[in-house]
This record gives sequence, C-alpha cells and structure tokens, in this order.
Amino acid sequence: MIQRRRPLILVTNDDGIDAPGLYELATHMTGLGDVVIIAPREEQSAVGHAITIRGSVRALPHAFDGPLASIQAIAIDGTPADCVKLAMNSILHKRPDLVVSGINRGSNMSINVMYSGTVSAATESSIRGIDSLAVSLVEGGRQKYDASAQCAVIIARKVLRSRLPRGIVLNINVPPVPFGAIQGMRVTRLARARWEEQFVEGVDASNQPCYFYRGKFYNLDEGTDTDIYAVSRGYVSISPIQHDLTAHGCVTVLGTWRWSEFAE
Amino acid sequence: MIQRRRPLILVTNDDGIDAPGLYELATHMTGLGDVVIIAPREEQSAVGHAITIRGSVRALPHAFDGPLASIQAIAIDGTPADCVKLAMNSILHKRPDLVVSGINRGSNMSINVMYSGTVSAATESSIRGIDSLAVSLVEGGRQKYDASAQCAVIIARKVLRSRLPRGIVLNINVPPVPFGAIQGMRVTRLARARWEEQFVEGVDASNQPCYFYRGKFYNLDEGTDTDIYAVSRGYVSISPIQHDLTAHGCVTVLGTWRWSEFAE
Repeated sequence: MIQRRRPLILVTNDDGIDAPGLYELATHMTGLGDVVIIAPREEQSAVGHAITIRGSVRALPHAFDGPLASIQAIAIDGTPADCVKLAMNSILHKRPDLVVSGINRGSNMSINVMYSGTVSAATESSIRGIDSLAVSLVEGGRQKYDASAQCAVIIARKVLRSRLPRGIVLNINVPPVPFGAIQGMRVTRLARARWEEQFVEGVDASNQPCYFYRGKFYNLDEGTDTDIYAVSRGYVSISPIQHDLTAHGCVTVLGTWRWSEFAE
Repeated sequence: MIQRRRPLILVTNDDGIDAPGLYELATHMTGLGDVVIIAPREEQSAVGHAITIRGSVRALPHAFDGPLASIQAIAIDGTPADCVKLAMNSILHKRPDLVVSGINRGSNMSINVMYSGTVSAATESSIRGIDSLAVSLVEGGRQKYDASAQCAVIIARKVLRSRLPRGIVLNINVPPVPFGAIQGMRVTRLARARWEEQFVEGVDASNQPCYFYRGKFYNLDEGTDTDIYAVSRGYVSISPIQHDLTAHGCVTVLGTWRWSEFAE
C-alpha cells in the first residue's frame, strides 16, 4: 500500500489564537494532515488586509491543551495577513498544502468580505498559490463550532484532492444549526449589499467629539444564487473569491473614452 | 447661460491630512467643484480596508492655509475607510459627486492595491455608488505632486461628465516625471505580482523575539496591458477595479464538484 505524505495545514484566524472557533477547526483538521497554528494573539476583527509595515511583529510560542497539546502553535502580535506572511517566509520550513482561516465568530458574507481579517488571511495565502479556505459561522443559535468544523473538513478534503483554480479562495459560511440540520452545500456568489452607518456621536475621555460605529446591513440582491440566500435556506455557502480586483469587463469600455487628448 | 451646480468633491488619503500630496490634489480639485477634505490625522499606510469598529473615531476641524484656507477640512483619528464612512453618514450634508483619494506617496499598482489605504477609501465610496478615484505618484524623481494633480484633474473632469460604471474605482498611477514628459494615459489591468518577504529577526524593547518587514516585489506578468508596464513606459495608468470579489468564472466550475454527498 502506498503511504501518501500527510498534507501540511496552516490554521489561522482573526478572532485571536484563544478563540474557540480556531480550536475546533484545528482539532478537526488534525484528521486530515499535520496542523500548524499561527494566529493573532488578540482579536483582529475588521482589520481587512492591513499589514504591520511600521514597527515590528512579535511571535511567541503558544501552548494548547487537549487534542492540540502536541501541535506547533505561535501567537503573533499583528494582523491575520501578517500571520500568513510570517508563516510562509520565516516560520514554516515548508510550503503548506492548505491554509484554513477561522472559524470566525459571525458571518463573512457579501460586502463584509472587504473588512474581514478572516478572509484576508486566506487571500494572502492564495496570492502565493496555496489553496485557501475562510470559514465563518453565521450568527444565531448556540454558536457552537462543531458543525462548521465538520463542514470545513468535508470541503478541505475535496480541495486537497482536486486542488482549486489558482488564486481562488473558498469563502465558506455555515448556518448556525446542528450538523444534521444542514441542508447541503451550494456554490454561490457574494450578494450585492452595503452598510449604512448611523454613527453615534459622543465625547471621549479628553472631552473631544467622537463617533461610535453603529450600522444597518442592507441586502440589495434578490438573487437566489447568493451566499446570503443559501445560508438563509440552511445551506453551507461556498463562494469562490479572487484577489485580482481588475474589473476586466470595464477595461474595454473605458478604453473607448478619449484618453489621447491629454490637455482639454 | 445655464448655471450648472458645482459638483461636491470629497478629498481623502492614507498618508494623513498634512501630506503634501493631499494638499496639491485638493488645491487642483477646487478648479472643478466644491472641495471638502476628510482625511486621517496621521499616516495610515498599508491598513487595507480596516475600519474602527472597536473604540471610537475622533473628528476634529483642521485648518489649512494658502489656497485651501476657506475649505472645510476634518482630521479623523481612524482609517481611510472610516473617513469615507463618517463623511457619508455623519459629516457631509449631501452626497458627493466624486471622491478622490491621494495623491499617495508611492505607487499602488498590482497586488499592492490589496494593502492600500488610498485605494480602500475610494473603494468604500464606490460601494455607495459614488464615482471614485485613487491617485498615486510612483516612487522616483523629485516626488513633486503637481503633474499628478494635473492628471487627476483631467481624469476627474472626464468622470464628472461621463460617469463611471457603477461600483468601479479608477486606480490611477502617475509616473514620476514632469507633466510635459508624460506620454499619455492608458487603461490597464492590475499586473499579476507578489511580494516575497524576507523578515528581519530582531528583539524588541521587552527582549522578545520579533520580526521586521523587508521584502522584494516580483512582477510575474509580462503583459503589455498592465499598470506596471504602462507606468514604466511613461504613461499614466488607469485601472478600473471593483469591490465584488466573486470569481464569477469559478462559480460554474466549482458547481460541477459533487457537493451533494454531504458525508463521505
């Protein structure tokens, strides 16, 4: 019988290395391969694709207990994108076969992928051509991560076998129900939506006017092929996303504008 | 003669409200419309699309001199995306016709748009359906912003007249040469490229191991239709970029994977 090499799986997140979603995810991933955890020491939600180019990034060994006691784990004082960059270029001695980011506490669907550190970590590794998943558990219910972790394992196993198209991240959102109640999996697109902030005006400790974020999320998309729709019907949503932001269809359109007339 | 309403133009950046690139940009934009400046108080480079959802965001009036003395200007203790969200939802009393972010000190081409606060500010306003430009001056030469500002005015005038397709940002990079030496303008796509970090290991003030970002940029793209190519030939590069990250071509491909078999 041929002994296949166990894949190397890097697990990270944006909720911080002590978040229960990461623990559950990493524990389940040990069934698929050798797991290394490199994650922010503290919560880094909504940091988007920020990196720490000013100052330094600290990296300290982190000890887990239970099923992760023997796993290499490193806590980073930095952003999720910092974690992946450090992992690839300084900490790991070989290239991972898969990067899994999560399980995020709360959904990362539609326009929210722009702000998400969970997704940015996966994007960062996909830029390097590594198959990458971002996994989020939608708000609601008991917020237990076992069903999401089981779904992540199913998808990760498929990805390790079939490989993703280059530069693609699978952005996975799991409805907040027990595993047995999940209706299935659907490949979706990100719904068109936006936030409308209603900032609350206040005064800070130094008596200066300041604002606190409050907002309302508007789904502007009635499509039945979106991430939000799939999750609302009890399905796991799997959206392929990319880091090439070029609006390719627009390049031709804008090329027809007269750019030659340099002064007018 | 019909008196047309002067457009409202919001100017922001990520280098901070005192950056010379912003001053030059805003000064030139006063020739096209009514300008309001809402920008980070301090430098916010490489923050990507981060927003300040924890804690508060401070907003303080800022006084410019010279040609901007009569302009409303507000400095924000927050990220570029915070600036645009606050502007839209709390500070401005009407919707701007155009948002211009920059002029960034240094290029924002290819994969670097992921990390750029300059671009994120423009992206944030494009999500709200507002025509948006990000303007960057490529490294090199004397780093004077007048030529870039003149180019921004030419492009802004076209955009105010023709309007952009919805959800599109024009990501503009200007070569570091005098206005008269610019070869023209080209509509481009983002070049495929990536950073390879070579982190420098060090020790921080508390004697803990830490890492400092160093890296090398690799352009992997030999196309002559890219932003990097255009700028290298002395052209202003105009790349239409979008915030919908769905890899639409991939939705169909991944849909052919067997997702029905929920356990395997």
